[in-house]
Parts: sequence; structure tokens; C-alpha cells
Amino acid sequence: MTNPLRDLADGRLCCLNTATLGHREPILTVIDAVARAGFGAISPWRRDVEGHDAAAIGRRIKDAGLVLPGYCRSTYLPATTPDGFRANVEDNRRAISDAASLGAQSFVMVVGGVAEGSKDLDHARRQVEDGTARLLEHGREVGVRIALEPLHPMYAGDRSCLNTLAQALDICDRLDPEPGPDPWLGVAIDCYHCWWDPDRAAGIARAGAARRILGFHVCDWLVPTKDLLLDRGMMGDGVIDIPAIRGEIEAAGYQGPAEVEVFSANDWWQRDREEVLKICRERFATVT
Amino acid sequence: MTNPLRDLADGRLCCLNTATLGHREPILTVIDAVARAGFGAISPWRRDVEGHDAAAIGRRIKDAGLVLPGYCRSTYLPATTPDGFRANVEDNRRAISDAASLGAQSFVMVVGGVAEGSKDLDHARRQVEDGTARLLEHGREVGVRIALEPLHPMYAGDRSCLNTLAQALDICDRLDPEPGPDPWLGVAIDCYHCWWDPDRAAGIARAGAARRILGFHVCDWLVPTKDLLLDRGMMGDGVIDIPAIRGEIEAAGYQGPAEVEVFSANDWWQRDREEVLKICRERFATVT
Repeated sequence: MTNPLRDLADGRLCCLNTATLGHREPILTVIDAVARAGFGAISPWRRDVEGHDAAAIGRRIKDAGLVLPGYCRSTYLPATTPDGFRANVEDNRRAISDAASLGAQSFVMVVGGVAEGSKDLDHARRQVEDGTARLLEHGREVGVRIALEPLHPMYAGDRSCLNTLAQALDICDRLDPEPGPDPWLGVAIDCYHCWWDPDRAAGIARAGAARRILGFHVCDWLVPTKDLLLDRGMMGDGVIDIPAIRGEIEAAGYQGPAEVEVFSANDWWQRDREEVLKICRERFATVT
Repeated sequence: MTNPLRDLADGRLCCLNTATLGHREPILTVIDAVARAGFGAISPWRRDVEGHDAAAIGRRIKDAGLVLPGYCRSTYLPATTPDGFRANVEDNRRAISDAASLGAQSFVMVVGGVAEGSKDLDHARRQVEDGTARLLEHGREVGVRIALEPLHPMYAGDRSCLNTLAQALDICDRLDPEPGPDPWLGVAIDCYHCWWDPDRAAGIARAGAARRILGFHVCDWLVPTKDLLLDRGMMGDGVIDIPAIRGEIEAAGYQGPAEVEVFSANDWWQRDREEVLKICRERFATVT
């Protein structure tokens, strides 16, 4: 432990990412439940919001006393044609406008893996940087920060060619070389994606020094993990030393909430919403 | 492509890792079949060998005209007790003696993840380095090189806390700082484990410059991948640009064989041995 940790028994420091509940109920129901359960923040997904009135949802979140750290998530950027790439950028531009209507502090970018039908990972990475540059511009215009979320390398094929914190921070430095005290471009750091990385602590320190930590996500790595996407564990049920990573994050100056994001088709998504919220709060207080 | 690639239609450059056949037949049967199929090398696993006469198996391999690049693989090193750790080292010492009896060029180290019941990844990594130092000594005595194989980060929980080429090469440099032209400690580089790594090309060049590339394994990353361990693809069936990586390896001076290692419980392990060997040879010649 590198610093005295903040007390996550204080629900104001706890954020519920709506994916944790499996997107089974309307967002307004979820907002009210999350506020009742004592959380201080909620991060919804586009599937919760699109097709509804984003501004009205944003007001409901605010009225419930919740903040909205990160709106999830981008359409994948890489494509095999210039038209496909442009369409992906446009789609994200619309989502960033929705993020502004919602009052989201940031828009979370899960950037996409190698484009379908391609084996060119480097090309995908170049497209991600190019697309991010365009979206950063739009984010500045509408007042939404862009949070690049590096994903675990097991997603390089289909979900994210951005796989380490160092890679994401290099992009930040190139696209936003003079960020000032409150950068428009930063990173969302998820324990699940970076716990294995030998350069994790250095990356977190670097991100903190540049004030680029826009989000901190928690869940756990189960042994065995039975599915690459939908078998994440609740904090405490796996092998990640989450308090150690939170220590690094807080020592780096991060003051935002810790956000629980658990994809779990066969366990947590099968449980009652109130049970899940209660256990999240408990695990925040004890093993996070 | 950074160099004109060697022609893998030449079977002498092709190695069959016996895991590709699912360990369904006695090793002597497999040796003969692999030689008949025109491969130039075979890498057996301990489960093929232990309980049998290693020296006799080694002779059969040699008589069949095959070389043996890498004997697979180490017992996991990390443990929560000193006794447990020592037992793991001892077990590997015996396996390295077997590797010598077999006439193996190297002993392949899959080092193990966080120890069961632990969340201390850093401790596991320190144990791996400590254990490798002891095994390197034994390897030198019996004439077997130690090949550290970094595994994909999705195995950090249960199979390997060594997850990048840079990490493995750092250990090599610390334990074997003056390696000379034919080092006793090096790395086995597997496309499957390192294809996603933004620092892969730099790591391969660094490994080559120090003459530390002791093995080169190929298979493919399927999209979707349905199982973390047993759903690898045959070369050409996934998203890895294998020729590009082979180009980096050969440009770095590697002259050994390319070794096919496919764990595939529901596809390739269900197929007839002769069909698998034939398709391996074809894919070596066309898409590797």
C-alpha cells in the first residue's frame, strides 16, 4: 500500500456502471435504485440511453444526487475502407453529443480491434489515433472529455487494439501535448485490463502526473475464467490485488469515484438487482 | 515484410509440437508419423515422456532424422511456502535432466501465475526469477538451454506471470549478463502470446541481437476465441499476421525451425493424426 486509501464505505466514492446489472431494466428504474442504494455516481451505457431523451435522463441522474463519470462507450473505430472509418467516427461524434446532453464528465472509448476481414493490427492502431484526434476536437466543442480505455490484450482481435496504459498515454501525449491542469483527453483505468501489466504502476504514475486519469474501474479476475468477455468477477472473488492498484491510483492524485463494472452472464446478471447493488457496496467497503 | 522469408515448404524448417496432436498416442508412434510427414523437428511434452526411458525416446527421435528444439515444459514455480517453491524447483531440475537425456536443445519454461491462494503477482515474479537462476545453473551443468516463454497476459492468474518479451529479456539480462555467442538462457517466442504487444518488434530485435531466440512457435488467434486455453487456431484461420512476425524473427537472425503448437480440444484434437500433420505442412508452406 503506497498511501492511506480513501474509505469506500462512503458510497459517494462508489460508482455503478450499469453493465454490472446486465441492462435488464429501464435506465430510469436503475438510476433510482442506484441512488437508493447509496452510490454517489452512475455510468450508463449507450444501450440504456439511445432512443430515449438523453437530456431528461441526465436531469434524472442529477436530481437523484448522482454524478456521471463516464458514458460508455465508443463504436469501434477501425474499418477496412475509408467510408467505413468515417462512418465509425461520425457515430461516435453523435454519441459524444449525447454524452454532453447527459452531463457526462467523459466519453469512454473502447476503440475496437483489428477490423473485420483484416490482420493489420498496426493499421487499426493508426486509425484509432486518427479517429481519436477528430473526436477530441468534438469533445472540446461540446464539453466532454475523451477517456481512452486500454483493454486487456485478449481483446486485441475483436474489441480493442489499445492494450496497455503506456500505449494510451502515448496517444494522449501526441494528440494533446499541452493538456493544462484539466485535460480533455485522458484514460480510464480498469483493474481487469491492466492488473497483469509489469509497467502498470509506472503508467498510473505517469497518467496521474499529467492529470489524465478520468476513470477507475474495478472488478476481479476469476480463476478459472470461463469466458473471455462475460465471466468477470465481483471484487474479492478473484486474484487481483485491487487495493494495491487503488493505492497507486490515489497516490497518483485521482479523486474521482471507483466504478464497479462486472460483465457476468452466468452469475451476477442472474441475480436480483437489489442483491447485486448491496453486495457491490459491501465489497467496495471491504475488499476494494 | 522486413526480409525475404525462408521457404517453409521445406519441411526441415518445420517442427511439430506434440500438443498439436492432443497427446492421444504413444510418443514413439508420434515420432515416426512426424518423420514420415516430412517434418524436420519435434518438441515433445513431459506427459509424452515421463514414466518412459527418456534416452531411448531421444535416440528414436535422432534415428528418425528429427531434431528436438524444446522439451515442454516446466512445473510452475510460484508457491506460497518456501518448501512448496523448493519442491517446484526440484521438479524442474529433474525435468531438465530428462531434457538432457532426450538430447533436447532447450527446456521450455512456462513459469506459472500467481500461486494458488495468493494475490501477490510481484512475489510470483520474484520467485520465477529466483527459480530460473537455480535452473539455469543446472541447465549449464547438463548441457540444456533454458527458454523462458512469456505467455499471453490472460494467463497471469493461473499459468504465467511472465507476460511480455521485455519482461523475459530483462530476466535474461539480469541472470546471464555475459551470455556470449550461444547463451544458456533465452526465450521461446510464440505468435499467440505476443502478437498484440506494441513492443513486440523491438523485443524480437533485442532478443535476436543477444542471440537469445531459442524457439519460435506458431498458431493463430481465432475470433471469437471460445476458451482461454484450448481454442487456438491453425495458422491462417485467425487474425495474426504470422508472416510479419516470422519476418521480424528471421531478420533478428533466428535460424531454427518454426514450431506449430495448437491447443484445440474441439477441433484439431478431434481430427485424424495424418490429416492434422498434412494440414500443418500445408499451412507452413502457405500462410506462415
